[in-house]
Amino acid sequence: MNFSEIAQTRQSCRNYDSSKEVEQEKLDAILASARLAPSACNGQPYLLTVCRGETAKEVAKATMGMGMNKFAIDAPVQIVISEMPYTKTAALGAKVKGNDYRSMDIGIVAAYITAEATAQGLGSCMLGWLDDAKIRKICGIEYPARLVITIGYAKEDDKLRDKKRKAIDELVVQK
Amino acid sequence: MNFSEIAQTRQSCRNYDSSKEVEQEKLDAILASARLAPSACNGQPYLLTVCRGETAKEVAKATMGMGMNKFAIDAPVQIVISEMPYTKTAALGAKVKGNDYRSMDIGIVAAYITAEATAQGLGSCMLGWLDDAKIRKICGIEYPARLVITIGYAKEDDKLRDKKRKAIDELVVQK
Repeated sequence: MNFSEIAQTRQSCRNYDSSKEVEQEKLDAILASARLAPSACNGQPYLLTVCRGETAKEVAKATMGMGMNKFAIDAPVQIVISEMPYTKTAALGAKVKGNDYRSMDIGIVAAYITAEATAQGLGSCMLGWLDDAKIRKICGIEYPARLVITIGYAKEDDKLRDKKRKAIDELVVQK
Repeated sequence: MNFSEIAQTRQSCRNYDSSKEVEQEKLDAILASARLAPSACNGQPYLLTVCRGETAKEVAKATMGMGMNKFAIDAPVQIVISEMPYTKTAALGAKVKGNDYRSMDIGIVAAYITAEATAQGLGSCMLGWLDDAKIRKICGIEYPARLVITIGYAKEDDKLRDKKRKAIDELVVQK
């Protein structure tokens, strides 16, 4: 699958087949690509906690506040992306330029995770709506949880939806 | 090129062949993939300004403060990613959860741009070190510039470097 196909095929999967486990080799491929993601000053300011089984269910519940993300409970794998402290160089750049590079870095690694999941034939969804305190406790991680990515096989009746995006001339200005 | 190959091949290109233009169809492919990037609540809170010629050189100069990014001047294309205001739904989520989704969204779209550039055989580099006020003026864009992505052909002597990343067991915890 080339990248254009990945971009067209990846969609937020909210309809997982909870009876199908994710093969370890597919998860390893996802983590191997995630590891190669670029980051500001190569700071890699994140930790990935891969949750399966009961832990995955607990993490899913921690994304379900106010009736959100009910589907998450059916995904057999939850990857928690926690934000780690800045490296000194990145911290200096961020201070001088008032730019939040760690959030961008987390976006980049999330894009890598979901792109490789798509390439592996898996569904995924990025969840920003989460209970940080609960997730830290479940995972035993001291750093703030910024995203949870659900991963699993989509149900067979889960179709590729049309993507609603800005028209290209709303997105792009040529100079 | 599959995604794993893209992840291994993409590197920050700091050695552009300024004599080679980027073909419009390759740039169109990059923008088409960028358009499909996911974002929080599908807010797509960014504008891409594609700069060529003299405008590209001016943008490059605006990334060169304090002796940084001297190589940028040789890249024939500069894509400025400007951050736009939140959609109402994303703004609410961000407020309730104290999470900066727009920066993540910009990271995701930057990952899409550089992944597709790699797939198209082009070099790219994400620059967070930039003079926002200058870039707004050059591009005539009122929104803050968050990243500049340089795009062009790497010089023939530009080799694939080994990637320095955390070991997988530093990056990943299994639960």
